[in-house]
Amino acid sequence: MAAVVHGYPSTMQDDYQLSMGRLIRQAVRAYPDAEIVHRNSAGEWGRTTYRENFDRIERAAGAFAKLGVEVGDRVGVMDWNSLRHYELYWAIPAIGAVFTQLNIRLPEDDLHYVINDSQASVVVVDETLVPIVENIAPQAKGVKTWVILSEGQIDHNLPNAVYYEDLLADAQPLDSWPNISETSAFAAGYTTGTTGRPKGVFYSHRSQYLHTYNTAKDLSASVDDVIMPITPMFHVLSWGMVQVAVMVGAKLVLPGQFSAETLGEITGALTDEGVTVTNGVPAIFTPMFEVLKSKGVTDLTGLRLLCGGSEPPASLIQSYQETFNAEVVHGYGATETSPIVTVNRVTEAMRERMSQEELNAYGSKQGKASVNIDLKIVDGLGNEVPADGETSGEILLKGPWITASYHGMPEEELADKFVDGYWRSGDVATIDAHGFIKITDRLKDVIKSGGEWISSIDMENAMIGHPKVAQAAVVGLEHPKWDERPFMLLVLRDGETITKDEIDEHLRQRFADWQLPEEFEVVDQIPATSVGKIDKKVIRNQYQDRYK
Amino acid sequence: MAAVVHGYPSTMQDDYQLSMGRLIRQAVRAYPDAEIVHRNSAGEWGRTTYRENFDRIERAAGAFAKLGVEVGDRVGVMDWNSLRHYELYWAIPAIGAVFTQLNIRLPEDDLHYVINDSQASVVVVDETLVPIVENIAPQAKGVKTWVILSEGQIDHNLPNAVYYEDLLADAQPLDSWPNISETSAFAAGYTTGTTGRPKGVFYSHRSQYLHTYNTAKDLSASVDDVIMPITPMFHVLSWGMVQVAVMVGAKLVLPGQFSAETLGEITGALTDEGVTVTNGVPAIFTPMFEVLKSKGVTDLTGLRLLCGGSEPPASLIQSYQETFNAEVVHGYGATETSPIVTVNRVTEAMRERMSQEELNAYGSKQGKASVNIDLKIVDGLGNEVPADGETSGEILLKGPWITASYHGMPEEELADKFVDGYWRSGDVATIDAHGFIKITDRLKDVIKSGGEWISSIDMENAMIGHPKVAQAAVVGLEHPKWDERPFMLLVLRDGETITKDEIDEHLRQRFADWQLPEEFEVVDQIPATSVGKIDKKVIRNQYQDRYK
Repeated sequence: MAAVVHGYPSTMQDDYQLSMGRLIRQAVRAYPDAEIVHRNSAGEWGRTTYRENFDRIERAAGAFAKLGVEVGDRVGVMDWNSLRHYELYWAIPAIGAVFTQLNIRLPEDDLHYVINDSQASVVVVDETLVPIVENIAPQAKGVKTWVILSEGQIDHNLPNAVYYEDLLADAQPLDSWPNISETSAFAAGYTTGTTGRPKGVFYSHRSQYLHTYNTAKDLSASVDDVIMPITPMFHVLSWGMVQVAVMVGAKLVLPGQFSAETLGEITGALTDEGVTVTNGVPAIFTPMFEVLKSKGVTDLTGLRLLCGGSEPPASLIQSYQETFNAEVVHGYGATETSPIVTVNRVTEAMRERMSQEELNAYGSKQGKASVNIDLKIVDGLGNEVPADGETSGEILLKGPWITASYHGMPEEELADKFVDGYWRSGDVATIDAHGFIKITDRLKDVIKSGGEWISSIDMENAMIGHPKVAQAAVVGLEHPKWDERPFMLLVLRDGETITKDEIDEHLRQRFADWQLPEEFEVVDQIPATSVGKIDKKVIRNQYQDRYK
Repeated sequence: MAAVVHGYPSTMQDDYQLSMGRLIRQAVRAYPDAEIVHRNSAGEWGRTTYRENFDRIERAAGAFAKLGVEVGDRVGVMDWNSLRHYELYWAIPAIGAVFTQLNIRLPEDDLHYVINDSQASVVVVDETLVPIVENIAPQAKGVKTWVILSEGQIDHNLPNAVYYEDLLADAQPLDSWPNISETSAFAAGYTTGTTGRPKGVFYSHRSQYLHTYNTAKDLSASVDDVIMPITPMFHVLSWGMVQVAVMVGAKLVLPGQFSAETLGEITGALTDEGVTVTNGVPAIFTPMFEVLKSKGVTDLTGLRLLCGGSEPPASLIQSYQETFNAEVVHGYGATETSPIVTVNRVTEAMRERMSQEELNAYGSKQGKASVNIDLKIVDGLGNEVPADGETSGEILLKGPWITASYHGMPEEELADKFVDGYWRSGDVATIDAHGFIKITDRLKDVIKSGGEWISSIDMENAMIGHPKVAQAAVVGLEHPKWDERPFMLLVLRDGETITKDEIDEHLRQRFADWQLPEEFEVVDQIPATSVGKIDKKVIRNQYQDRYK
């Protein structure tokens, strides 16, 4: 990155710190009557307002200070999308401490790793999740106090535990909010990668503030919106939905615990409260569609469903559009990126110009880089790929809400995770002439052969289209000359056999000759992980000498 | 202001500089086909796109570098709302220089003061404005080069003058944009106060970036908008309209020179190009309404007219609403505030709850403080006034796009312009329970008596309501005990006389006893300024000993 050049001095208040504390205090002042509709762990709904609830935020801040939490300390939180979770979003950073997200779905081993790595001195946990932390409390020796979120007393065996509601009843509201520097950590999140330990990302007040502005803009959020975060609030801060609501003064709907059983209630809240913005993954929006349809809902005009995690099927986008006049907005991001870095909003001009088929193809793309996000896609040699919608490369990201490192990671380990100040996403994508990106692979699943890339997923999908083939797995194996070469495992349909010529002939419809695998193997079963995905690591190990 | 406290370090890219250069470069990449429709000084319209025009921006940047403009240098610009002005908005800061706005309506004496105070080494001027600068060129000795914006050669007697189009034809496009620090000056503007010399405000890249985000959010601007700045681009950067367009990727309409004669053409562009966002003052929007109506326009749904400078009459707001379904959005700001700090957008909830009369009253208010703007209203003792919509005080402002000083002003002169890090606006306002502010006076027109304030404008308006009174002027005169006391000049209707008791009785309908003026004078004529306003300075001088 070019060195920073200093120009003529400005006269502005450039030392005014961007802080999330200012955000909530100003929202309470500007939008005191904005409603918060919320559902607790017992399934009961309630209503409050920004102004009315603010006293609890200031009491919670006072209570944490009284517990001995100081500026810079980390406080862990493990909860559903509840009102108390919302309060903690603001109360912990209010005293300069770090709101540390604890993912309730982490394996126990990773959970106490996260608590210890973040050095959380206090951990706050919802009553329904106490059984999880009871198991790991003995290994989490740094935790001085456990705080339980509940309606009343509960049975538990946590040491040094107190009740949040008791703390609030005893506390003095915070009397003066410290002026926290904008580069101080506001919150922390940990990656949930499939390999290695979770890695810590510490969001600054500045990064979160700018992410909020940008997401509000990208969603055209306004004071007339009603925002319901479905993505868990322990998952990259629910992608900033709560913060966006507070910035624009929107009504907020906090649906509590989300599960298959509560779909009826949550879709009920969506229609009854007039929700206009929500977020989630395709695996949530798909059953939601069915429930809404079965309830006879016909019009959800104005609703934007921010969809991430994985690619929404074109049929899902089209169904919401045609049945409810609702817009599925596809986005892309990661724990390391706060998370939103691309949003797919098709312009009116494109809508007029393109056929429904073309629009569907666009819907499957992840969209354009947000302003202020420096996104580039580079091939194996680090050169930017052409914007032709076909050539793929790894997505690299730079920007004010992208991480520059991982918590406590030694320099030598960081080296291959960043290049020239860009964070390496590990995602492989194409970019088209409109700047829309489309993710095609994870980098680890791409075969790098002689500086060029071959998509293992595309090749698997192509082979599954062969009438003799039931399953296919393609991996890259080390090769002395070409770095890697593709290798294929096939499970055939009953009684079939297949030749290399037959494979080549079939693959030539989509692949160049140099991309075709020299070797393959027919097997009875393809190695799989516990969740049923192809275990490429096992395959690579088993056949590692094939091209050597 | 509380000292900045440093918390736990973040892992984010907090040193990624917010720069206006990134804004235009990313817009060109993300929205290459976004159109710019423009009109030149000869009245000819043209069309281009962000992408197509960008080459001219990079050439202009290269040309200024070749002229010897270096990082931190100031370049003055004097032009209408033209395409070349748009290019200069980006090209000058691209090389780290400061885009210095020259108000074409400044008296010559002030104009060369601004050029000299800013130490502009290059001044760019439209061909139609060359006669103005020819007069002051001899006094602007620091200017090494004058650059003329024109379609071809013109007659002039400027020394060391070159043509912009010749520079571009010869220039190499800027090959690499420097990484400017966000606290460096991006642009400069000068106040046009009625007293004293213009005062310089130097906007940083950071302040302008955040102002753009915020204004985009406050106007709910999106890629589907069409933005036409009517407010001059030399006037607080046209309130950020050009920057907002570039941030969201909106189509931009640059109407060139705006005057009474061009109203037909400009309203034509408004309807033909489908403008959805524009800005200006009531004095512009009033005749525009008549022209639009006379053309038979009936529907401008979606159009927001950002209105500032002075209070739009309720009738104007209502007319646009009822005749065209267009929204007049009232805002407030100043050169010192980038400028937008409050915007009046009435929420749906308020719209449902309130009568048309109440809504009209709200429309006359300036709106709520934007997020991130710390606005308070204080009385003569520095205490915040209650949010009752009645008690008035001076507006104080703090925030990332508020100035912290004036260019080159000595500390002792700055002292009374700032208090506790807040900029003193000099505007007197009330604030209501919804956080809406309403400006009632300029501070210099308020009478400060015993720590309490009396509105001279309210008292004048009240007295004009008396059947015997034709004109009234109220000023504060120095008083040994009360600091100031009100004093009144009256012009009576033909043949009338008036007593102190009659005055007191009339004013008691609106004013407390302690607020009533002890002294008054009936005169034939009230001293007035050249533009017909009451000349309070003359009255105060003439009667200065009245209460001593």
